[in-house]
Amino acid sequence: MARRPRRKAEETREDILSMAETLFRQRGFVAVSIADIASSLHMSPANVFKHFQSKALLVDAIAERHLGNATERFAAVDTSLPPKEQLLSFVLRLLDSHLQDIQQNPYIFEMVISTIDAKLDAGHRYRERIEQKLGEIIREGVAEGNYHCDNTAVAARTVADVLACVLHPILIAKDDKNTLVHRAEKIVCFVDAALQNNPC
Amino acid sequence: MARRPRRKAEETREDILSMAETLFRQRGFVAVSIADIASSLHMSPANVFKHFQSKALLVDAIAERHLGNATERFAAVDTSLPPKEQLLSFVLRLLDSHLQDIQQNPYIFEMVISTIDAKLDAGHRYRERIEQKLGEIIREGVAEGNYHCDNTAVAARTVADVLACVLHPILIAKDDKNTLVHRAEKIVCFVDAALQNNPC
Repeated sequence: MARRPRRKAEETREDILSMAETLFRQRGFVAVSIADIASSLHMSPANVFKHFQSKALLVDAIAERHLGNATERFAAVDTSLPPKEQLLSFVLRLLDSHLQDIQQNPYIFEMVISTIDAKLDAGHRYRERIEQKLGEIIREGVAEGNYHCDNTAVAARTVADVLACVLHPILIAKDDKNTLVHRAEKIVCFVDAALQNNPC
Repeated sequence: MARRPRRKAEETREDILSMAETLFRQRGFVAVSIADIASSLHMSPANVFKHFQSKALLVDAIAERHLGNATERFAAVDTSLPPKEQLLSFVLRLLDSHLQDIQQNPYIFEMVISTIDAKLDAGHRYRERIEQKLGEIIREGVAEGNYHCDNTAVAARTVADVLACVLHPILIAKDDKNTLVHRAEKIVCFVDAALQNNPC
């Protein structure tokens, strides 16, 4: 019985997140207030604020719920392939996931724009996982003599940066998939050519 | 006297653009309607619509006024420098101009976001000028034996793509300048290393 209250708080938190997502999907991110979410749950706004002190923190929690366990995006790539093919396969997998995110949750576009200066933790953690995966592929390429690079962590960060135009939700939301895939292929060619030539 | 009416129309067009910019700067891009612009000029909305059939077309004209003659951004770079230094100098000049644009016209951020699906002509023309300048530097690098690249136009497009994270107003608006300059330097290193290695 001692754990009851804590568990209840966690359940309330999940209820708030689910209702927020439902309302965002129905009415758009900007139009929905914390008060709207509270009233749809027959709760007081103060009670919602007890769990999320701002809409930005609510968004952070929703993003973490989506991205925190998107493990299939970071699953192993076939390490018998040349590093260029591994990079391309990882990038196209992410691109595909991001396009699906945008399509399934159209409010994501509005959400990203509205919170672009909030520097959300969920976004940072997601970006770190991308850099980590890129770093693994680059390090393997170095170990096998395909790539030459003094600082693989710095290289991974730059590769993540240059991929913004095929991964960032705001930059890809209005482009068609074929264009994006073609662009991703060209960028991976550049990255692969650069990494053979010690760019970092 | 025969030219009077035409001249008047051009003047009216300029008055509308100047008033629109003033109001955007005062109240933000989203909050200002075509009717607001008309009433501030003591004109009928119909008269404004005669010149600009939509807010997107108005934005296009404002952007063209700003970007159409931003010739100093595309001025010659010192061609005695190695192509890497030329690339960096051009990219840093653009980055600086974009940060100034954002600071001097804070509504640009809102404007870019609101019109991101309008695919404005002014944006296309600006992007083409960037690709053209990048193409010139790459072609010179090829001519002098520094770079190896089968299709310089395709390479210029990819280089413009990878520069989004240091040039696109939405991606740079919230980062500090030192971070952006450092990121630009790393990307130019990658591009330079790639172009020595026939990536295209």
